[in-house]
Amino acid sequence: MIPGPTPVPEQVLKALSSHPIGHRSKEFQSLVKTTTEKLQWLHQTKNEVLTITGSGTAAMESGIINTLSKGDKVICGENGKFGQRWVKVAKAYGLDVIEIKAKWGKPLDPNTFKDILENDSNKDIKAVILTHSETSTGVINDLETISQHIRNHKKALSIIDCVTSIGACNVPTDEWGLDIVASGSQKGYMIPPGLSFISVSEKAWEAYEKSDLPKFYLDLKAYKKSLINNSNPYTPAVNLVFALEESLKMMQEEGLHNIFMRHEKHKLAISKAIKKLHLKLFANEEALSPSITAIQTDGFDAEIFRKKIKDKYDILLAGGQDHLKGRIFRVGHLGYINDRDVMAAITAIGLSLIEQQSASGEDLGSALDEANNYLNQ
Amino acid sequence: MIPGPTPVPEQVLKALSSHPIGHRSKEFQSLVKTTTEKLQWLHQTKNEVLTITGSGTAAMESGIINTLSKGDKVICGENGKFGQRWVKVAKAYGLDVIEIKAKWGKPLDPNTFKDILENDSNKDIKAVILTHSETSTGVINDLETISQHIRNHKKALSIIDCVTSIGACNVPTDEWGLDIVASGSQKGYMIPPGLSFISVSEKAWEAYEKSDLPKFYLDLKAYKKSLINNSNPYTPAVNLVFALEESLKMMQEEGLHNIFMRHEKHKLAISKAIKKLHLKLFANEEALSPSITAIQTDGFDAEIFRKKIKDKYDILLAGGQDHLKGRIFRVGHLGYINDRDVMAAITAIGLSLIEQQSASGEDLGSALDEANNYLNQ
Repeated sequence: MIPGPTPVPEQVLKALSSHPIGHRSKEFQSLVKTTTEKLQWLHQTKNEVLTITGSGTAAMESGIINTLSKGDKVICGENGKFGQRWVKVAKAYGLDVIEIKAKWGKPLDPNTFKDILENDSNKDIKAVILTHSETSTGVINDLETISQHIRNHKKALSIIDCVTSIGACNVPTDEWGLDIVASGSQKGYMIPPGLSFISVSEKAWEAYEKSDLPKFYLDLKAYKKSLINNSNPYTPAVNLVFALEESLKMMQEEGLHNIFMRHEKHKLAISKAIKKLHLKLFANEEALSPSITAIQTDGFDAEIFRKKIKDKYDILLAGGQDHLKGRIFRVGHLGYINDRDVMAAITAIGLSLIEQQSASGEDLGSALDEANNYLNQ
Repeated sequence: MIPGPTPVPEQVLKALSSHPIGHRSKEFQSLVKTTTEKLQWLHQTKNEVLTITGSGTAAMESGIINTLSKGDKVICGENGKFGQRWVKVAKAYGLDVIEIKAKWGKPLDPNTFKDILENDSNKDIKAVILTHSETSTGVINDLETISQHIRNHKKALSIIDCVTSIGACNVPTDEWGLDIVASGSQKGYMIPPGLSFISVSEKAWEAYEKSDLPKFYLDLKAYKKSLINNSNPYTPAVNLVFALEESLKMMQEEGLHNIFMRHEKHKLAISKAIKKLHLKLFANEEALSPSITAIQTDGFDAEIFRKKIKDKYDILLAGGQDHLKGRIFRVGHLGYINDRDVMAAITAIGLSLIEQQSASGEDLGSALDEANNYLNQ
């Protein structure tokens, strides 16, 4: 129950362990074709979705360095560790970064984006870089509204980290006009880490032609060119593509709506139960991520608490990062998670609280009852 | 029998298909520790060996961009497709490239390196970028001699593509003073593609501090820092690390000397047999790669020939790349290959030649007999 690597279905692990085949073979080309089509379905887009061997960070970096030039002015949203990382990437490449911040645990204010974009009458702002679901805090930012403000600006590109939102909640790439959407395999995709994905709009490809930042392995034009032949510019992680094919097939069988509803009800079940156990949610309740719930531990050490749960119940919860270490723990409910997993996590948390006398058996009963109401919806 | 992805042992595939674990967990840290130690053994080095999720190209690019600055003068050896690629990478980052070329199929002349390096009295040359075993042509360059010339220069770093030489023939990193050695998992390592490896010398880390080329995902300092805690800066391909642990264990059981001897005898068996079948080796006989043998097909189309072998014997041989397409085919004998595989490949090639009346049964017999002499050594 961590926000990645997420659990991997047995049939996906089986596909993963097939003998590798040549990445220039017809068989592999056919896999590239079908997985790319399915990725477009998942991303709700007609844009190319490129598969890169690397982490989600590699995909986000490629989105930034393929569309921008040194000195370009960009907005970076920052309300957590990943927002912070994209600021670092942008600065590493000499971009001129306007940071829009919110306290960790709070969502970014769309109106701040609106104001800055509307006041940019010279159209100097080239891109807005943003994390949709902030894994470090369990906050989801209002991408629908912010993307509308970006579209109204007309010039700025949207470069969005959807690492823990794609495959968990609705991200209609084309409808929201998202130019770059980056994600990683070990999240909603239900496969082990090693692949990342990036969808690129027509407008982003136009920006590519003007971009002067140096790149080679992450030069997306090479991936685009190869994709015409259902191929890759460099040797891809072939076995992870076997796994991807299988997991995307499972996702199509479940259907986008059902996947989103499953994540929604798990989110509600956990967050409502947590309150019955007298714990506080770290994130604003109207901005809870569909993938991960961060829980405050006022009065006890979150690290010791989650270690106990790991040792006693073999359930791994995530800790807080940076200044949040020891102050929060995080329950991942992303990807291949079912009702039983959610119930087990709530029960383990509840029993551990009972043991340290900060909750009663009655509290746990009512937490599970409340959770069950949402799971039955 | 292609030069990568190479065959993967069953126990390695089994390790690959284990359930992924958290990359920040103690269990994974212990894997990072043991695999890193084994990688140092394989690289014959005390230098850090960093593991990057990405292809061999990503590792080579990281070697270049972490040690050099815009405008730096570098030598690139170019006698095949991969040499050509490093020229492209160097130019993409604005380096001033002196190309030392040889005709594809011929090895690079160490004396040309010697002359240019000796004449560089201002010590302007910052690095020599070189491919050890050129996969596209089956040529091995004389790295031992060239690295001596680089060491004599004192200032220039050696940045070496050992993608198809590490784990196939002797590459004593420390003894030859190699500063950067890059390689990829789907080669001698006997695991599927997706990981790449790079060893970095003290001198290269000193150069890092002066390097001004922008980077983030491929910034090696972040990997070095994480390695102190047996960790990774970004989510690594966890399951491929499971596989790596298993394959390195197998390699240690076999022993470096035995691994090199196995590749040497397979190389000799194939190259000697090929001549008995009246085919010409594409590479100079004194510079045959330990991993791959390129064979000329004067008078018939190599692509049709290898398609026949694939269809009839289910043995996949590699084709020629770029202008060599149709003119050569390549037999990979890298990684998890045994005598039977080599015999089967020779037999399939021989029978296909008999079918098209360019060899006789007697030729095939004597080819196999000759091969067997080397296999029995």
